[in-house]
Amino acid sequence: MAKTYFPNEGKIPFVGTKDLTSGLGYHYYNADEVVGGKKMRDWLRFSVAYWHTFGQQLNDIFGDGTAVRPWNGLTGMDLAKARVEASFEFYEKMGVDFYCFHDRDVAPEGLTLRETNKNLDEITDMFAEYQKQTGMKVLWNTANMFTNPRFVSGAASSPFADIFAYAAGQVKEGLDIAKKVGSENYVFWGGREGYESLLNTDMQREQEHLAKFFHMAADYAKEIGYEGQLLLEPKPKEPMMHQYDFDAATTINFMKTYGLDGTYKLNLEGNHANLAGHTYQHEIRVAREAGLLGSLDANQGDKLIGWDIDEFPSDLYEATLAMYEVVENGGLGRGGLNFDAKPRRSSFTVDDMFYGHIVGMDTFSAGLKVALKLKEDKVFENFITDRYASYDSGIGANIEAGKEDFKSLNDYIIDKPQTALLAATKSGRIEELKDTLNHYIVETLH
Amino acid sequence: MAKTYFPNEGKIPFVGTKDLTSGLGYHYYNADEVVGGKKMRDWLRFSVAYWHTFGQQLNDIFGDGTAVRPWNGLTGMDLAKARVEASFEFYEKMGVDFYCFHDRDVAPEGLTLRETNKNLDEITDMFAEYQKQTGMKVLWNTANMFTNPRFVSGAASSPFADIFAYAAGQVKEGLDIAKKVGSENYVFWGGREGYESLLNTDMQREQEHLAKFFHMAADYAKEIGYEGQLLLEPKPKEPMMHQYDFDAATTINFMKTYGLDGTYKLNLEGNHANLAGHTYQHEIRVAREAGLLGSLDANQGDKLIGWDIDEFPSDLYEATLAMYEVVENGGLGRGGLNFDAKPRRSSFTVDDMFYGHIVGMDTFSAGLKVALKLKEDKVFENFITDRYASYDSGIGANIEAGKEDFKSLNDYIIDKPQTALLAATKSGRIEELKDTLNHYIVETLH
Amino acid sequence: MAKTYFPNEGKIPFVGTKDLTSGLGYHYYNADEVVGGKKMRDWLRFSVAYWHTFGQQLNDIFGDGTAVRPWNGLTGMDLAKARVEASFEFYEKMGVDFYCFHDRDVAPEGLTLRETNKNLDEITDMFAEYQKQTGMKVLWNTANMFTNPRFVSGAASSPFADIFAYAAGQVKEGLDIAKKVGSENYVFWGGREGYESLLNTDMQREQEHLAKFFHMAADYAKEIGYEGQLLLEPKPKEPMMHQYDFDAATTINFMKTYGLDGTYKLNLEGNHANLAGHTYQHEIRVAREAGLLGSLDANQGDKLIGWDIDEFPSDLYEATLAMYEVVENGGLGRGGLNFDAKPRRSSFTVDDMFYGHIVGMDTFSAGLKVALKLKEDKVFENFITDRYASYDSGIGANIEAGKEDFKSLNDYIIDKPQTALLAATKSGRIEELKDTLNHYIVETLH
Amino acid sequence: MAKTYFPNEGKIPFVGTKDLTSGLGYHYYNADEVVGGKKMRDWLRFSVAYWHTFGQQLNDIFGDGTAVRPWNGLTGMDLAKARVEASFEFYEKMGVDFYCFHDRDVAPEGLTLRETNKNLDEITDMFAEYQKQTGMKVLWNTANMFTNPRFVSGAASSPFADIFAYAAGQVKEGLDIAKKVGSENYVFWGGREGYESLLNTDMQREQEHLAKFFHMAADYAKEIGYEGQLLLEPKPKEPMMHQYDFDAATTINFMKTYGLDGTYKLNLEGNHANLAGHTYQHEIRVAREAGLLGSLDANQGDKLIGWDIDEFPSDLYEATLAMYEVVENGGLGRGGLNFDAKPRRSSFTVDDMFYGHIVGMDTFSAGLKVALKLKEDKVFENFITDRYASYDSGIGANIEAGKEDFKSLNDYIIDKPQTALLAATKSGRIEELKDTLNHYIVETLH
Repeated sequence: MAKTYFPNEGKIPFVGTKDLTSGLGYHYYNADEVVGGKKMRDWLRFSVAYWHTFGQQLNDIFGDGTAVRPWNGLTGMDLAKARVEASFEFYEKMGVDFYCFHDRDVAPEGLTLRETNKNLDEITDMFAEYQKQTGMKVLWNTANMFTNPRFVSGAASSPFADIFAYAAGQVKEGLDIAKKVGSENYVFWGGREGYESLLNTDMQREQEHLAKFFHMAADYAKEIGYEGQLLLEPKPKEPMMHQYDFDAATTINFMKTYGLDGTYKLNLEGNHANLAGHTYQHEIRVAREAGLLGSLDANQGDKLIGWDIDEFPSDLYEATLAMYEVVENGGLGRGGLNFDAKPRRSSFTVDDMFYGHIVGMDTFSAGLKVALKLKEDKVFENFITDRYASYDSGIGANIEAGKEDFKSLNDYIIDKPQTALLAATKSGRIEELKDTLNHYIVETLH
Repeated sequence: MAKTYFPNEGKIPFVGTKDLTSGLGYHYYNADEVVGGKKMRDWLRFSVAYWHTFGQQLNDIFGDGTAVRPWNGLTGMDLAKARVEASFEFYEKMGVDFYCFHDRDVAPEGLTLRETNKNLDEITDMFAEYQKQTGMKVLWNTANMFTNPRFVSGAASSPFADIFAYAAGQVKEGLDIAKKVGSENYVFWGGREGYESLLNTDMQREQEHLAKFFHMAADYAKEIGYEGQLLLEPKPKEPMMHQYDFDAATTINFMKTYGLDGTYKLNLEGNHANLAGHTYQHEIRVAREAGLLGSLDANQGDKLIGWDIDEFPSDLYEATLAMYEVVENGGLGRGGLNFDAKPRRSSFTVDDMFYGHIVGMDTFSAGLKVALKLKEDKVFENFITDRYASYDSGIGANIEAGKEDFKSLNDYIIDKPQTALLAATKSGRIEELKDTLNHYIVETLH
Repeated sequence: MAKTYFPNEGKIPFVGTKDLTSGLGYHYYNADEVVGGKKMRDWLRFSVAYWHTFGQQLNDIFGDGTAVRPWNGLTGMDLAKARVEASFEFYEKMGVDFYCFHDRDVAPEGLTLRETNKNLDEITDMFAEYQKQTGMKVLWNTANMFTNPRFVSGAASSPFADIFAYAAGQVKEGLDIAKKVGSENYVFWGGREGYESLLNTDMQREQEHLAKFFHMAADYAKEIGYEGQLLLEPKPKEPMMHQYDFDAATTINFMKTYGLDGTYKLNLEGNHANLAGHTYQHEIRVAREAGLLGSLDANQGDKLIGWDIDEFPSDLYEATLAMYEVVENGGLGRGGLNFDAKPRRSSFTVDDMFYGHIVGMDTFSAGLKVALKLKEDKVFENFITDRYASYDSGIGANIEAGKEDFKSLNDYIIDKPQTALLAATKSGRIEELKDTLNHYIVETLH
Repeated sequence: MAKTYFPNEGKIPFVGTKDLTSGLGYHYYNADEVVGGKKMRDWLRFSVAYWHTFGQQLNDIFGDGTAVRPWNGLTGMDLAKARVEASFEFYEKMGVDFYCFHDRDVAPEGLTLRETNKNLDEITDMFAEYQKQTGMKVLWNTANMFTNPRFVSGAASSPFADIFAYAAGQVKEGLDIAKKVGSENYVFWGGREGYESLLNTDMQREQEHLAKFFHMAADYAKEIGYEGQLLLEPKPKEPMMHQYDFDAATTINFMKTYGLDGTYKLNLEGNHANLAGHTYQHEIRVAREAGLLGSLDANQGDKLIGWDIDEFPSDLYEATLAMYEVVENGGLGRGGLNFDAKPRRSSFTVDDMFYGHIVGMDTFSAGLKVALKLKEDKVFENFITDRYASYDSGIGANIEAGKEDFKSLNDYIIDKPQTALLAATKSGRIEELKDTLNHYIVETLH
């Protein structure tokens, strides 16, 4: 790392919350501070998304890239290598411990998979070497099987068998790399695994192919002794009209249908949750309760906007409630919080790269602290325990114990008057709970 | 049926398609016409939704009921009985063979479940008697467990055990009635089975209760020898912020998680599909391919509107594609097409009741005819067969046969150049297929 | 006020922000505290919405009312009078200064408008008397011209002239009452002024009638010497498929088209903004910059939900940014913050009535404080001044002064290289600004 | 045109509607057929969108271009010229009379505006020459002021004055070209004229700049004697979070606010209408009734998808109702129907270019025929005349004539009983009208 890519930026300091004009600094993220029995870094396991931060030129569908980056002007493998060097300087300055990458965003394609793999091997060897020097770790790697025109109608669910074969070769290399660089997880996001129109689609055959692919991947991982978690990432639509891994529940259904639920877990993203009509917390809850919470993509959408914007998270409510689920889960295990996020197209400077990560890390750090305080004080827990208390004894306990049936319950209830039934219900007190949440955010964070 | 409720309306005639000013008449529905090897009435199994057609006053959240009905002014059991009489006159004039009903929409509640059941028994005895006289059949009945305040936080998923017990008693009666009146199906729509806020909800405990309830229901049905299909009806939201049976895939996931997929099937509605972000065809396809297509609620939403409007179906595209799935399924078995639909609030006359059903029946009859013609000519089938042909031999057939793995596929593909990969993909030709669909609609229906 | 309706609730105290378990109390609203040069009560001018708080039974489209209220069981004018008494007790305990009401929500209809007016006069006389005793004021009153079936296809835009006439008589009475009780504003929300289908609608003729109606109303207000503001309230859809006052810009366009922009201003609601695809801040900004900001309905929607939920505001971001516009506007003048909000259907107790208002008042009080601090520190102001600085001198100033045209500008720019053009643009720094906003919320409120 | 670009495609024949397997051919578009008193070509004035058909590589935000085109491999001015040649061959084979183009999509940028203009002049000279040879006409041209990074925060509404100046120079050239090639219209779509966040935006200042820009443009057009229509094109969002020309009403409001409504009209697009929450017909109706209907972008969206997909129109309902407004308008005047549409990314062949236009042209031709038949039979007209008849005499006519006020109307209505009021309302009969529409589509098109 002879060259300095970000000469105007130093290591991001922890400045605490009271200084409103502190410039580049963390107000809530203090990596080695122990909260809830663990270091913040171990709760949060922040990861930089290589593609957004080092690959992304901030183009959109109506506009060319705007990003001003120290590597602009380079091409091919020179560009790829400069990005590697810059990335490790960036991680160190931000004080993050993990990064994530797609294969095609770190190294250029060649004319064949063999040539492409050669480029990729060279770059990932650099990764391994830099990791050794710095202690950085890979949260997960993945295969980009959506950008190239060959994947126009899917990768593993493509109607064309050669494309399935290509995807297999590509993921084989991805798993080999995961083993080499010690990725904690390997992720599958099926950007093209879905349909544009049912008029021309054999959905069942496509899903069977997809399932077969995931089985082959798990078999290969086992064969090479790769021990990271295998994760599926749901998204409902975009780029396709419908994607098979629509949301957490749909993906779990797919996993159960094809016997994949013992082998795979979920990687969940905030913006994807919203596009499916859910809150982020909902999706995490669904996965957690199914025992399938793998890892999180920490970003946010704009609920008034119908496409994926991958904004750096800044909403304290969403971060608090997402972290509440993580705390309930006892942490993220091998998973972490990957910023699948990019600065806005109009935030095109290097400073904005830093500010984007700062607001994301601070927001989730704040969320962690508030969530821990809410748990410590059993704010929601006590309320919920009390709300469902009628199932802890009497007829409710009998129901849970399987001792009742329709006839016994009918006998029990048939003469109870409406007044007694209404008396059995209690207010859900949502307004009070939302008021309490506001106070916890303000008072915990100060 | 001494009294005539609709003296200005006669039996709806079949007038064919060319007469544009034929007044009240079918242009496409000809009940005993044989198409695709069956009578239209047997393909379509149209059903009138008692609650919308005889219970509905056409109120909305900002407005009182507008419906002008011959039974306006009556109350209590007098009202209930008048509606029964009117309903059978209506069925006969429309020429439909089935109807569906909720318990609470056919008879008023008493102070206890026992009193309520008494009212309900009296009315459903009338149903049984009228059925005998007319040959009408019940497509399905169901329990309204969402209107009464006791269900404010759910029925089987209520936090309050007495409400679970009440729901059990209510469905016990519902299944007894299903047996008595010979319902082809018994449906569960969980209008309140979901949450308003995760802040106060133990989602897992609620879902476990819900599953237990469905098991008890199936056990009771077996015990009394009720042989109709048991169906769950998905809807994503409204009235709740999130409903557990969000869409077909989510509901199937729930069924698999709790061992209900051998016992229950799905009842799918067009408007609900849209609210979940799907086409109606998508939801039917998902259920069909899972072997869980039970029955259909034939209505339509307005995709620019975010709530459930239960419009009578009039869209020839949606009806054609829904019926395409039905034809692929070989028909609906014990299921049918229930018009869970109401005239607009501004269509408040008795005439509009008739026109609503006419447009619905004509639209689905048209859809059936177009779908059969598309199948007969193998329009989509041939295209799809050709599109996936690479899986019918060679490497594709090997993949399907389980003879390949990542290593063998990698060897196969690693040196194929990009040009060969692109040559392996074919156009999806969506524009041509949509053009063809338009022509089939126009030419088949004329 | 001999009877006490809320015996378990006392006057809501100000308890400050640090006490997390203070029960019923304000953490941020301290009515007489001076902030930004005015008392909080004068900035905020909080108003209780009579219909939600005293009329609302918390029904929804799938469910009957759940509200447990001390006046349950009463009917007709007895009910109406009990609500009046209870309402003034509630205002006093909450410490609010204003209320708002619809005509039909305070007194029952008779068989003719004359009879209806008689009921209404009696109740509004009680209002006037209680106001004298307590100092309470009416922020605005309005006419409910959407619930009764006579308005099924509109009031002033109804296709039926008698309905227009009825609406005229109803609003005449409304303006008479506004004068009598000293309403600061008179509001028009056109719940049915729109269409369900263009197939049967003469939109232009309807809009011309609507405009004529507003002119007549303004003429009558002038004639009787009523000096309050006249306000139109936008909403895009629900109950109609399309409502003519879709959003702020559409309504201003209507006002300009028909010469109403000198006479009317806007009443803006958060939930309505979201349903139209906008943020609440956007709608307030549009009105403010047009000089047409009249008053605010302080509530919130759920952006994942497609209908109007009228939730009590609890989102500190939305409240801060709404109040930022109010602060920019120098306050709300004769307008105020009306809680067009209701507790959730599952929050059915009297306690929830209080908590709902507490979270609403606290949230907007907090928003006011943060907004004032942001203004005081010129956080956004300085950034924006700097961002647009190129228009303060040179070519930019010439453009604004009207000294340039396409030819002069072409001469100026035609040889500037791309590098110079890119150098002229600056980052928008959204991530940094969002991070700053978080810190201001936490640090200001503590 | 020495070279043939599409050797496998001939001139598209008219084959009529009954042949379901006719290959590339029109079923409804017969250019010289006279319907409703005009040739179809004169009613429809179809236009090919140069950018989609010759510039578009069918990339999306997650994927590279897939389009297989005869000019693939060429670059710079060679590419630009090949596209010109191919385009005129395409127009001739399709039998369309008009095309539309953006500046930057027909010729590459140079380092300065002067260099860029040089390229553009060369290409548009070719256009002029080919037009002379073929009789083709330009429906409209426009400036792409959204792709280049210099427009990251707007063009005329950019916070940076040099960018305003650049936009001025660019549109000056655009108007010069419009005159040279005889464009019937000149269009402004403000892809970046809006905001990403209000935190950093001076909305009023931006809108004032925008208005000034439009005035300068109109002045320049006048100065050079350009006589085409000037059109603004609304779109609500994407690429920006909010665009100033949100929808027709918002844009008209902007035009009225800044005195532009005498100078500019509207260009309306189907997909944009849906993104703003409207039907296409609604937007056209709004513009038509304001006397501001300029031209139409004929495409369609997917209402279940939240972004702009620019699909070729295939929906017979939308096309019929859009054309109904056009027929009501007496045609489109200088405007036309431009296919701002592209084949799906998976429809990447040259054949799909042809099929896309065929389905679009056939669908709108069909829509025209159905609309004319509906008008001829006065289907909706008679219904509407009857529905509003109460305004044609008596109290209604007095209201329209300005002879009534609130007092006289109050006297008229105050003693009318509710029964009389309800009797004054009539059913809207939406279900019957939708049924009729279906029959007209089938019977007219056959």
